[in-house]
Amino acid sequence: RYGQIEAEDQIGAATGLAYTAGGGDTLSIEVSLAKGEGNLTLTGKLGDVMKESAKAAFSYIRSRSSELNIDPQFHENNDIHIHVPEGATPKDGPSAGITMATALISALTERKVYREVGMTGEITLRGRVLPVGGIKEKSMSAHRAGLSTIILPKDNEKDLEDVPESVREGLTFHFVSHLDEVLELALGE
Amino acid sequence: RYGQIEAEDQIGAATGLAYTAGGGDTLSIEVSLAKGEGNLTLTGKLGDVMKESAKAAFSYIRSRSSELNIDPQFHENNDIHIHVPEGATPKDGPSAGITMATALISALTERKVYREVGMTGEITLRGRVLPVGGIKEKSMSAHRAGLSTIILPKDNEKDLEDVPESVREGLTFHFVSHLDEVLELALGE
Amino acid sequence: RYGQIEAEDQIGAATGLAYTAGGGDTLSIEVSLAKGEGNLTLTGKLGDVMKESAKAAFSYIRSRSSELNIDPQFHENNDIHIHVPEGATPKDGPSAGITMATALISALTERKVYREVGMTGEITLRGRVLPVGGIKEKSMSAHRAGLSTIILPKDNEKDLEDVPESVREGLTFHFVSHLDEVLELALGE
Amino acid sequence: RYGQIEAEDQIGAATGLAYTAGGGDTLSIEVSLAKGEGNLTLTGKLGDVMKESAKAAFSYIRSRSSELNIDPQFHENNDIHIHVPEGATPKDGPSAGITMATALISALTERKVYREVGMTGEITLRGRVLPVGGIKEKSMSAHRAGLSTIILPKDNEKDLEDVPESVREGLTFHFVSHLDEVLELALGE
Amino acid sequence: RYGQIEAEDQIGAATGLAYTAGGGDTLSIEVSLAKGEGNLTLTGKLGDVMKESAKAAFSYIRSRSSELNIDPQFHENNDIHIHVPEGATPKDGPSAGITMATALISALTERKVYREVGMTGEITLRGRVLPVGGIKEKSMSAHRAGLSTIILPKDNEKDLEDVPESVREGLTFHFVSHLDEVLELALGE
Amino acid sequence: RYGQIEAEDQIGAATGLAYTAGGGDTLSIEVSLAKGEGNLTLTGKLGDVMKESAKAAFSYIRSRSSELNIDPQFHENNDIHIHVPEGATPKDGPSAGITMATALISALTERKVYREVGMTGEITLRGRVLPVGGIKEKSMSAHRAGLSTIILPKDNEKDLEDVPESVREGLTFHFVSHLDEVLELALGE
Ligand SMILES: [Ca+2]
Ligand SMILES: [Ca+2]
Ligand SMILES: [Ca+2]
Ligand SMILES: [Ca+2]
Ligand SMILES: [Ca+2]
Ligand SMILES: [Ca+2]
Ligand SMILES: [Ca+2]
Ligand SMILES: [Ca+2]
Ligand SMILES: [Ca+2]
Ligand SMILES: [Ca+2]
Ligand SMILES: [Ca+2]
Ligand SMILES: [Ca+2]
Repeated sequence: RYGQIEAEDQIGAATGLAYTAGGGDTLSIEVSLAKGEGNLTLTGKLGDVMKESAKAAFSYIRSRSSELNIDPQFHENNDIHIHVPEGATPKDGPSAGITMATALISALTERKVYREVGMTGEITLRGRVLPVGGIKEKSMSAHRAGLSTIILPKDNEKDLEDVPESVREGLTFHFVSHLDEVLELALGE
Repeated sequence: RYGQIEAEDQIGAATGLAYTAGGGDTLSIEVSLAKGEGNLTLTGKLGDVMKESAKAAFSYIRSRSSELNIDPQFHENNDIHIHVPEGATPKDGPSAGITMATALISALTERKVYREVGMTGEITLRGRVLPVGGIKEKSMSAHRAGLSTIILPKDNEKDLEDVPESVREGLTFHFVSHLDEVLELALGE
Repeated sequence: RYGQIEAEDQIGAATGLAYTAGGGDTLSIEVSLAKGEGNLTLTGKLGDVMKESAKAAFSYIRSRSSELNIDPQFHENNDIHIHVPEGATPKDGPSAGITMATALISALTERKVYREVGMTGEITLRGRVLPVGGIKEKSMSAHRAGLSTIILPKDNEKDLEDVPESVREGLTFHFVSHLDEVLELALGE
Repeated sequence: RYGQIEAEDQIGAATGLAYTAGGGDTLSIEVSLAKGEGNLTLTGKLGDVMKESAKAAFSYIRSRSSELNIDPQFHENNDIHIHVPEGATPKDGPSAGITMATALISALTERKVYREVGMTGEITLRGRVLPVGGIKEKSMSAHRAGLSTIILPKDNEKDLEDVPESVREGLTFHFVSHLDEVLELALGE
Repeated sequence: RYGQIEAEDQIGAATGLAYTAGGGDTLSIEVSLAKGEGNLTLTGKLGDVMKESAKAAFSYIRSRSSELNIDPQFHENNDIHIHVPEGATPKDGPSAGITMATALISALTERKVYREVGMTGEITLRGRVLPVGGIKEKSMSAHRAGLSTIILPKDNEKDLEDVPESVREGLTFHFVSHLDEVLELALGE
Repeated sequence: RYGQIEAEDQIGAATGLAYTAGGGDTLSIEVSLAKGEGNLTLTGKLGDVMKESAKAAFSYIRSRSSELNIDPQFHENNDIHIHVPEGATPKDGPSAGITMATALISALTERKVYREVGMTGEITLRGRVLPVGGIKEKSMSAHRAGLSTIILPKDNEKDLEDVPESVREGLTFHFVSHLDEVLELALGE
């Protein structure tokens, strides 16, 4: 079922868009919580940049827990695991930053992620969304997978011209500069 | 006795199917518990992908302990060791994911694993079962070892056509998409 | 929006000047605080020298907390994260030392960093500011980004002659030998 | 005195059989206990497989402490050190598994190991004994060292034919499939 | 201001003499203390031998705290950072041993280090001072920097003949065999 | 003063004999104790085998503290540092085992080590002394340094014939098989 849209809206899972050797692909980011003492585990053959990106997303959430309606103690009372299947495929780069942040916030607030939404963008410690590469390929894979909406960084607006007409018509594009806008678009009540 | 079926149903041990240089092989996954403080030890010359797969299985169980009838504190009160003999043979890949999950749950619930069941499949943090390679060779090794039933990922159903007629007739195949189905097939009361 | 001045004065973010293969560039240093137990996390594909520079800045602040009007316990009660976007770009060298110190002190005192100020300089454990390379390129990138003021080490005063006339006229230069002078120039009330 | 039988039955030391570049050799496995907090130290230039084998032996004992008449808290109250002289000789492989288990159990129960007994075999987390290589060379070194009895894995029974007549007559061979049988043969009251 | 004498006597900073590819150089060793729990941080692109040398200096001080009039608990109550600018220059070797010890003791006792004193020598766990290389080049750099006094190991007395006449006349040389003599020469009240 | 006998009997320092590229050399092993929590620090550019040898010596002492008249809690209440000058010279091998054990026991019991005694020999966890190489070169360096007595492993007795007549006459040789004999020969009251 990889490369296909989720069957239902999910808690603790969000759909990213990856730029791979073979073009673009969709990517599930999964988050699990368990009673624990603040450990953050990152798996899925992730490279250093992607792991650092997860840590930036995590610190952003910790520093803004009250605005996000998350228990400020969540960190001390839970172990958190972020996993990105397929486990044998190497993955790297900062472009899953906003997807990891969204999946984490979904798990911590128990708000569902809309199944038809995909996204890509680097996140910073202040929640800003920075531009990434491969917009054309990522858009095509989102369309192929059956998504209806994709969220892209504001500074990638200029790359829309590279996306084939048919794909542009089949998808709704949102260009954002802060994670707050991502959450508004991707999370249900 | 390797490459042969277990003499009895076991607690804390499950039979995986591996795809090796020499074809396919069966693989015992062993789990031991001891009073401790939450350490997870992984041995058997396991590669990084296989270790991450064990961690995904472990986190899945922790996040779903109540549904699985496992003490939610099991993690704090036990050290857990997963070992895969033969200790000198390098092993890697995500395909032992559901076998490690099954052996862990068997150890934690003290439910026996049926000795005639073998299995292969990647596990995700949500318990989904993803497709793997080497279905033909794994099926042949399962048959050779004397197993009667094998559990495969739903998305590998199309690979059944590659399995020799004689092997297909000697085995019962189950295709699954979630770990819940694996547990139903593999664990006794 | 990278390579451009911040839209507003910021708490916990300061603008550094980097010397890169492609000339000069501006660099945001971001700091986040969260209730914790004294962990310092450093991300942004930072090399060892840059990480050590962050530690020197951090220890300087800890050893001078009372003079800096910072709670002497801040270290035990907070986890601190320093991140330098863009996450995929390798960064190294000691020249972000005073920028990291400024961003940290801004976050800990909640004083804003003036958006029009950029800076570069190695910091030592005693808060001294040591000279760095690439003054010409760094000045040009500061000007290009729209900054009005840059802070440089005293011992780099001789390098001003290398900066093009037009850039020199568009920027105010401050040459400093101690971090105290940096803070006076960069932080609001 | 290496390559020779011990002068007396020992507590906390057992004799293994190693397969080396120069043929076979006997090997002392030494265990010491000291009041501590559960650290396991492994020395003697041991390779990764041999270290994992020690951990499997250790976890087996922890998970079966009551059956083995060992204080279930032994782990929390002691630091345990396993050392294999000679310290400059690299050693690896899983075949010292049952010897390490025997030396550990001897130290923990204060039962002596019979000085005339040597052994070789991989151990699993369930205490099963798996076959190993070099039976011919190991048997010859046991005979040369003056041992009277050697314990081998059941699945190595077929390799007895490779052992020279004179050695076979000078030694009593025991073939075992579980550690319980090893302990019965090797430990005094 | 590097390669120049300090403007004032300092607490927690001492001047070492280094033997570099380009001849000799002076080196500031800086120490900072902060309320903490006994961590020792070493930065400045230091090699393993230099780090071990810092640890030897540190252990010597801990084992002799009462003779040195240092609170025997200083270790449990403080985090200690030793930094050697310039941060991008690799440094190694044992010859900064007595300089690191002097800077540490200055920080812990709040006694000032005389600004005109430079020093070089390996330190041992018993406070003995062992000979080092590059006496000629180190003496020349001390003279160039404006120091008036340098402290050298007793066993380097024979190397004085290699130092140019003019340098020998401009400096006072002290040859010592124990750290006690160094402290007498370098520290004020 | 290296390569020369100590000026006085020492507490916490013993003289080893090393086999080096340039022949033999004497070696000081220094031990310091400080109030702490059981950390063991090993410095002096020591290789892995030498570090493991130190750990074996340490565990032997811990497991035999009462027989050695050492407080059984010494480990929990002290940090222990073993250093082997000269810090820039790489050292490896198991032959300093008994010297490290002797220096440790001297420090812990405050009994002095006789200044005229040198020694070499591998130690095991049971305190046995195993043979080492370079007896000829080590004896010559002991003689050259002015020692009167050297302690060698029993199994090196056969190597005495390789030592030059003049050296043999200038030294008293003791051949031992257990650390107890070493302590009797090397430690004062
Ligand atoms: Ca895919
Ligand atoms: Ca474009
Ligand atoms: Ca096999
Ligand atoms: Ca097929
Ligand atoms: Ca940029
Ligand atoms: Ca210039
Ligand atoms: Ca041997
Ligand atoms: Ca055979
Ligand atoms: Ca310099
Ligand atoms: Ca000379
Ligand atoms: Ca020497
Ligand atoms: Ca000989």
